[in-house]
Amino acid sequence: MKNLIKSALLLVAVSMFMMGCGNNGNKTQEKAGALGSNAAEKVYVAPGEHDEFYAFLSGGYSGNVTVYGLPSGRMLKEIPVFSQFPTSGYGYSEETKPMLNTSHGFIPWDDSHHPDISQTNGELDGRFIFINGNNTPRIAKIDLSVFETTEIIEIPNSAGNHSSSFVTENTEYVVAGTRFSVPVPQVDMPINEYKGKFKGALSFISVDPEHGHMDLKFQIIMPGFNYDLSHPGRGNSHGWFFFSTYNTEEASTLLEVNASQNDKDFIAAINWKKIEEYVNNGGGKKMPANYAHNVYDESTHNATSTMKKEVLVVDPTEVPGAVYLLPTPKSPHGCDVSPDGEYIIGSGKLSADLTVHSFTNMLKAIEDKKFDGEAYGIPIMNYDDVVAGVVKSGGLGPLHTEFDAKGNAYTTFFISSEVVKWKLGTWEVIDRKPTYYSVGHLMVPGGNSRKPFGKYLIAMNKITKDRYLPTGPELEHSVQLYDISGEKMELLSDFPSHGEPHYAAGCPADLLKPKSKKFYKMEENKHPYAIKAPQDAKVVREGSNVHIYMSTIRSHFTPDNIEGIKVGDNVYFHITNHEQDFDVPHGFAMIGANTSEILVMPGQTKTITWQPKQVGVWPFYCTDFCSALHQEMQGYIRVSPQNSDIKLSWSLDGE
Amino acid sequence: MKNLIKSALLLVAVSMFMMGCGNNGNKTQEKAGALGSNAAEKVYVAPGEHDEFYAFLSGGYSGNVTVYGLPSGRMLKEIPVFSQFPTSGYGYSEETKPMLNTSHGFIPWDDSHHPDISQTNGELDGRFIFINGNNTPRIAKIDLSVFETTEIIEIPNSAGNHSSSFVTENTEYVVAGTRFSVPVPQVDMPINEYKGKFKGALSFISVDPEHGHMDLKFQIIMPGFNYDLSHPGRGNSHGWFFFSTYNTEEASTLLEVNASQNDKDFIAAINWKKIEEYVNNGGGKKMPANYAHNVYDESTHNATSTMKKEVLVVDPTEVPGAVYLLPTPKSPHGCDVSPDGEYIIGSGKLSADLTVHSFTNMLKAIEDKKFDGEAYGIPIMNYDDVVAGVVKSGGLGPLHTEFDAKGNAYTTFFISSEVVKWKLGTWEVIDRKPTYYSVGHLMVPGGNSRKPFGKYLIAMNKITKDRYLPTGPELEHSVQLYDISGEKMELLSDFPSHGEPHYAAGCPADLLKPKSKKFYKMEENKHPYAIKAPQDAKVVREGSNVHIYMSTIRSHFTPDNIEGIKVGDNVYFHITNHEQDFDVPHGFAMIGANTSEILVMPGQTKTITWQPKQVGVWPFYCTDFCSALHQEMQGYIRVSPQNSDIKLSWSLDGE
Repeated sequence: MKNLIKSALLLVAVSMFMMGCGNNGNKTQEKAGALGSNAAEKVYVAPGEHDEFYAFLSGGYSGNVTVYGLPSGRMLKEIPVFSQFPTSGYGYSEETKPMLNTSHGFIPWDDSHHPDISQTNGELDGRFIFINGNNTPRIAKIDLSVFETTEIIEIPNSAGNHSSSFVTENTEYVVAGTRFSVPVPQVDMPINEYKGKFKGALSFISVDPEHGHMDLKFQIIMPGFNYDLSHPGRGNSHGWFFFSTYNTEEASTLLEVNASQNDKDFIAAINWKKIEEYVNNGGGKKMPANYAHNVYDESTHNATSTMKKEVLVVDPTEVPGAVYLLPTPKSPHGCDVSPDGEYIIGSGKLSADLTVHSFTNMLKAIEDKKFDGEAYGIPIMNYDDVVAGVVKSGGLGPLHTEFDAKGNAYTTFFISSEVVKWKLGTWEVIDRKPTYYSVGHLMVPGGNSRKPFGKYLIAMNKITKDRYLPTGPELEHSVQLYDISGEKMELLSDFPSHGEPHYAAGCPADLLKPKSKKFYKMEENKHPYAIKAPQDAKVVREGSNVHIYMSTIRSHFTPDNIEGIKVGDNVYFHITNHEQDFDVPHGFAMIGANTSEILVMPGQTKTITWQPKQVGVWPFYCTDFCSALHQEMQGYIRVSPQNSDIKLSWSLDGE
Repeated sequence: MKNLIKSALLLVAVSMFMMGCGNNGNKTQEKAGALGSNAAEKVYVAPGEHDEFYAFLSGGYSGNVTVYGLPSGRMLKEIPVFSQFPTSGYGYSEETKPMLNTSHGFIPWDDSHHPDISQTNGELDGRFIFINGNNTPRIAKIDLSVFETTEIIEIPNSAGNHSSSFVTENTEYVVAGTRFSVPVPQVDMPINEYKGKFKGALSFISVDPEHGHMDLKFQIIMPGFNYDLSHPGRGNSHGWFFFSTYNTEEASTLLEVNASQNDKDFIAAINWKKIEEYVNNGGGKKMPANYAHNVYDESTHNATSTMKKEVLVVDPTEVPGAVYLLPTPKSPHGCDVSPDGEYIIGSGKLSADLTVHSFTNMLKAIEDKKFDGEAYGIPIMNYDDVVAGVVKSGGLGPLHTEFDAKGNAYTTFFISSEVVKWKLGTWEVIDRKPTYYSVGHLMVPGGNSRKPFGKYLIAMNKITKDRYLPTGPELEHSVQLYDISGEKMELLSDFPSHGEPHYAAGCPADLLKPKSKKFYKMEENKHPYAIKAPQDAKVVREGSNVHIYMSTIRSHFTPDNIEGIKVGDNVYFHITNHEQDFDVPHGFAMIGANTSEILVMPGQTKTITWQPKQVGVWPFYCTDFCSALHQEMQGYIRVSPQNSDIKLSWSLDGE
């Protein structure tokens, strides 16, 4: 009880600190950080010129990923991932609806947190970007040649899929860790019997080296802590993965107090190569499960959803030497690994100091069998045996760390609202710059890889308040761009994000530019309802289902008028865009349709449905301003009564 | 037939021209327009400083409105209007679902085109911004104190609600015109009997001067042309409204050829004051109809949808002197009125020249009864009697015109990809600057009012191609910012838009800044499921419906654990955010919910539903990073079998 009161008092103090930071933007200090035209020129990308870097920001509660150019801070695209997206018809079109299928049925949304670009030999390779769905646990894959979501896999036995989605050095695996522990398997039980009974699953999803398909290879069933973030080993530590934990108290109510009791929580070090070997040799236990695997086929332009019924689970106590717990103060959030793989940085979010563990020290202590007890059968290391150093910066509320290529680390502090630059190995603080306000993640392009590109750093701030013109009670979050090419960081600019960016991944423009697809080749279109040319357009009735095989080309639909549709029909518009040039989409909208429009790229086929409810003559039109005669791109559907004998017919050019 | 072939050939020539423009970005020319640091400094808004202007861009096929700051080009917010918006739960939450109700049922999307800010005495007053839904005809109203959509009214007898939503000088009316003519009332009839039988409705929606509520006052049932755009008279011409028309051929198939036959189409001049007087004196005919009127109540935080069953229609031939047709070459698109109200500019999109009509000339010719026949009983003016001048710029494909306060006009040319500045009255061309590529609308803040703020101009370009780093086949559209304070226009910057911006409205920052609401006062919250304080939290079962009255405050839910929920229940989470400070939202997400999360602003209450499908213990959490202990803001729901006798109970802090 005493502890509770103490914690509550601490909390009040912390809260006051937080609020103070949010309100006191020191304008003088901030102007010194962005000196007039110098900063202006540094972020200015002249009309027609291109940015140097791509930055992929998670959308948080938008469920999507947004693409920005750096240094300009211009948003280039929003890629729909877990959320319905009326702009393109994603999640509304017949082809993409299966992407949002789950074991809970169709889910139009998720909370996307941590994008990670695929790697080869520890360096960004620009093939894919992965992102986690937090709420209904899933991992999505975006193909970076088309900037579209092409695969989503659900994660069973998981809840609040937060310590995800990070890749191993050669993208052997993308990793997902549960934030909330739950009964595994699920069972109707009292919540206050949580302790010892709830479990935390850490999932390793293999990525096929050839075509990139994901498969849930195994899950490690860990103690019932909260697993917060994770990062891969690299270089010497390749083969290991590190997960931060909090709530090692295993509290199940009022966590803001009850999960802040222990002086130290853990970073869990997982030797995934050892577990991989174990399961390849028949280890682990097959467990009944039910989770969706959704794949978008780029040749048929169609997604399919398959329910998988089994998952391989591993009890870590049955694989000696595979899992260790590294004590880390207190309630560590970020868990970041240096470019050389030697240092694992744990940021105890209620601690002032950063704890840096040494991979070499850890191996040595394991070899020497020096442990400090165990938790549920998993060895706990001695803090002093594994720690390499402590960064005493004076900041409060450390969260996340990224790196440059010169041996420097950059850590965000939420409570004291700043980014602190410090030196790996000496742990000395080199520079600090304020953020406005309450920074969460930060990102250096390649900063989570063996090869960071340490020119820019973005800070993603959780509180915005007065940074931009007001937009009522709801504000976008704020991003700040720093030049980190010199000894001291320089604040260059602020720009709003879209959604809530939790984390970001970035890469040089040249990694993606040359291979970005411009349009889909018509001859490669294997969509079952595609037509190869406008003259193949047709309308086919199958009972009350009517399939319209429609063509778009500047600036008309074929067919543009259709008669013989009846009230109660289910009308499928299968629209093929026969353009074969870059940036000539056509859109399709039908009055009264209970879905969105669809935006159809050149060479692509998409389908929406419409249920006519009333007789009459009803128009459709193109939603993308495709040419000078775009306004003329329209057509009508004549709807007759259900018992009408009007024959199905369609016309073009008065035929 | 000969005409058709001629037109087809013209079309090919035009198309080639268009494509040429899209591909030949002349980099030398463009760099000269944005000279290094000068332009960089002009668009740079230092960290923490505010932009000078708000710009509200329609989202086109996104269905929403986006808010930008000028000159920085930073997107400050996306306001959901006609589309479901997973980011905030708009269109998913119980409170906001009625906003998307229509006579066709729930529609999750529309195509939003023309925002217009409310006016008083012809000047922007910053109370509301209106925007049209094109596809399923509707007008929406956004309250600019909260930047939220608060009202949507459906438009019956309309189809492709394009020549909308523009306001009269004192916001007496917001006006909506049908793009597609249809049978009025709807009837099952052959499409090729269109001519003479289809009609075009122009709708005048009154706006209550006190609380802003909209009501469909009357519809004018016009000939079966396509009505493209419209603008209000102002000053001397206050009381009139002008609509451009195309397809006066009344073609119903392959319009790109068949609606391009007539040398001149019309601008329809509507004396709405005369019609208002007519209907106020009992004129017009009440006609059965079915259209939705959706209102969001800011005190209950709830929207209601009411189906209206009647509309007042006016036959223009029964109100002599109310409607005239002004011949305008050819297929006019834009229809813009000078700040003093004297000039009506018709941009024939297949013409090289701009046609400027004079309001004074028109009145004179009407007085003199000089007409050139009639169309369906509506007098046609003599072109030579009404024209004030012709702007011969040499550009191709003129679309839209805006104005500055110095007597200059700025017109976009889609085909020749440029903005041309010219002088009102002398019609001389003063300057021209290329756009990249194929510009549609342009916007000068206040440029559609008596008081333009002629410092910046934005061009909204329809084709993007190589302007930014590539993002696969799908690109955002491109906006270009020009400084128009000098004699010559200066291109300052490019930035991508979000969705397809058709038109925009802008105003000085100071018009909106002082009155922007920061949070909702708890004592004003009249939501039926709100609780006044965390201690009022409760869970109430009503049959299989369970209502959870939940509180959020940093950083916990009250209650945070709930037991006694059963498979098959319908669980309502009514979340009240008890924070009372700016920018402290909380979010709420429930695993497996078949809706989105909700983002709840301070003092607000929002509701989502969840249908538990499987027994177990299932988590929820806060989706907005609200404090240093945000990760601890979570809870569990215990789900028992349908026949379970577990009592409903809830806990906080281990109670």
